[in-house]
Amino acid sequence: MKLASFLSAGRSSYGAVTDNGVIDLGAMADMPKSLRQAIAELGTKGLHKACDNKSVDHDFSDISWVAPITDPQKIICIGINYINRNEEYLADSTQPSYPSVFMRTPASLVGHRQPIVRPLDSEQFDYEGEIGIVIGATGRRIPQAQAEDYIAGLTCVQEGSVRDWMRHGKFNVTQGKNFDKSGAIGPWIVTAEEFDNYEQLTVITRVNGQQRQHDTTANLLFSFRYLISYLSTFMTLYPGDIISTGTPTGAGARFDPPKYLLPGDTVEVEVGGVGILANSVVDE
Amino acid sequence: MKLASFLSAGRSSYGAVTDNGVIDLGAMADMPKSLRQAIAELGTKGLHKACDNKSVDHDFSDISWVAPITDPQKIICIGINYINRNEEYLADSTQPSYPSVFMRTPASLVGHRQPIVRPLDSEQFDYEGEIGIVIGATGRRIPQAQAEDYIAGLTCVQEGSVRDWMRHGKFNVTQGKNFDKSGAIGPWIVTAEEFDNYEQLTVITRVNGQQRQHDTTANLLFSFRYLISYLSTFMTLYPGDIISTGTPTGAGARFDPPKYLLPGDTVEVEVGGVGILANSVVDE
Repeated sequence: MKLASFLSAGRSSYGAVTDNGVIDLGAMADMPKSLRQAIAELGTKGLHKACDNKSVDHDFSDISWVAPITDPQKIICIGINYINRNEEYLADSTQPSYPSVFMRTPASLVGHRQPIVRPLDSEQFDYEGEIGIVIGATGRRIPQAQAEDYIAGLTCVQEGSVRDWMRHGKFNVTQGKNFDKSGAIGPWIVTAEEFDNYEQLTVITRVNGQQRQHDTTANLLFSFRYLISYLSTFMTLYPGDIISTGTPTGAGARFDPPKYLLPGDTVEVEVGGVGILANSVVDE
Repeated sequence: MKLASFLSAGRSSYGAVTDNGVIDLGAMADMPKSLRQAIAELGTKGLHKACDNKSVDHDFSDISWVAPITDPQKIICIGINYINRNEEYLADSTQPSYPSVFMRTPASLVGHRQPIVRPLDSEQFDYEGEIGIVIGATGRRIPQAQAEDYIAGLTCVQEGSVRDWMRHGKFNVTQGKNFDKSGAIGPWIVTAEEFDNYEQLTVITRVNGQQRQHDTTANLLFSFRYLISYLSTFMTLYPGDIISTGTPTGAGARFDPPKYLLPGDTVEVEVGGVGILANSVVDE
């Protein structure tokens, strides 16, 4: 099942995505107000059941996609999590003992087909294609063996970055990762029952149709189950929390000369079994 | 005016704090659901007016304090922002060009008089007394000259830190700053009209009554107005957003041997013109 949030005739809602359009679950009587709350209260199974005997309410042409979870309690991002990228980035092959972790605000990510914004302040606007885990249940100190049970589903993340502003702080990349509308998430969440496992998922990033990043989760330094277990050691994970699991080699900054994003460019992030998140670049 | 959020007979509410108790604004007809929403919709002036001719609804003994803003969109923290601390921390006197910035989750901060929790995973549980700015209006690219107009008020923050987990990531301190219930905020927000300016505010931290930190905002590397202007360069600030403005010298880690927090300890953070935030330490 694919779950998404969207605007329809100016109204904010969510529902299930089919081949022919969207079933508007948010418009049904007694349903929670947001997809985050619906996952928390009904679970993905309950949402699946809510679709029984329902037909499509909206054509795709009648909706605008927004972030699948519009109101996450937190968006956790993992830095340098593909083996080759660790070598690319650190210029050595020392494997880190723990993940690098930072956070983004919801306002930094737009939905599918919404423009991402190159800010006034930098010409170093860059893409990072990633797989986003959407948490489905509340948990703390989750053992790795149970960690995958806490996944509601997966989505695509374009973890757009402003490279020079990532170096403003000595110990943090927060600034360059949190420009308003600098990244994207979506188009939807593909729920966990559609994946046999998370061991061989591909992530591909294309700019104007040209492939820039391509790797699989077989090369992750820290697996999905490790990340869920590790993060929940210190913080309770809640339904709707997002974990963006890191990007492969091939971001624009790594080319010589760098290939930064320009207004008019189109960025696509494709995740195997999920779909394609596409956004064009506009200047602020 | 002092604004606070609290639990009363199991109900979550907010109101104005007087010498004799609390006026329960959240219980009045047609009021927004949280203090964050009330500040956004009515402003602090509107909340002041809502108190006209109201008497106290609750004795202090009948409420439990929670974080003044229970549902902030973001909690932004500034690292190393007092002149002496920069020298203490970096072992040189080079002044950084920009602030160090990281984020905390709401779940990492408890309210006044709630216990803070030393986690199972570390014996390096440390205090950091700070002044918290509560944002009162929505703004992006706010000029320094107007920045103080965006302050709804100030509160005390104990930006509790787990030192060894701050070094897990190479470029981020996220983990050690986000253990559940590792810090505290409150007891209340003192609204902006009670401050002539923000140039000479004291911040003091005491552990078991012994003073450990003491400095004033005269020694800030980056002033409140600079921080609001700088942060709003890249991210829209929203009502209820918190900016924790950095801690003076004298955190436990800087003593030789270090003076980390132990179960049974009491930590107080006192901010001039605001009040005292007090929390005891318990083991997880």
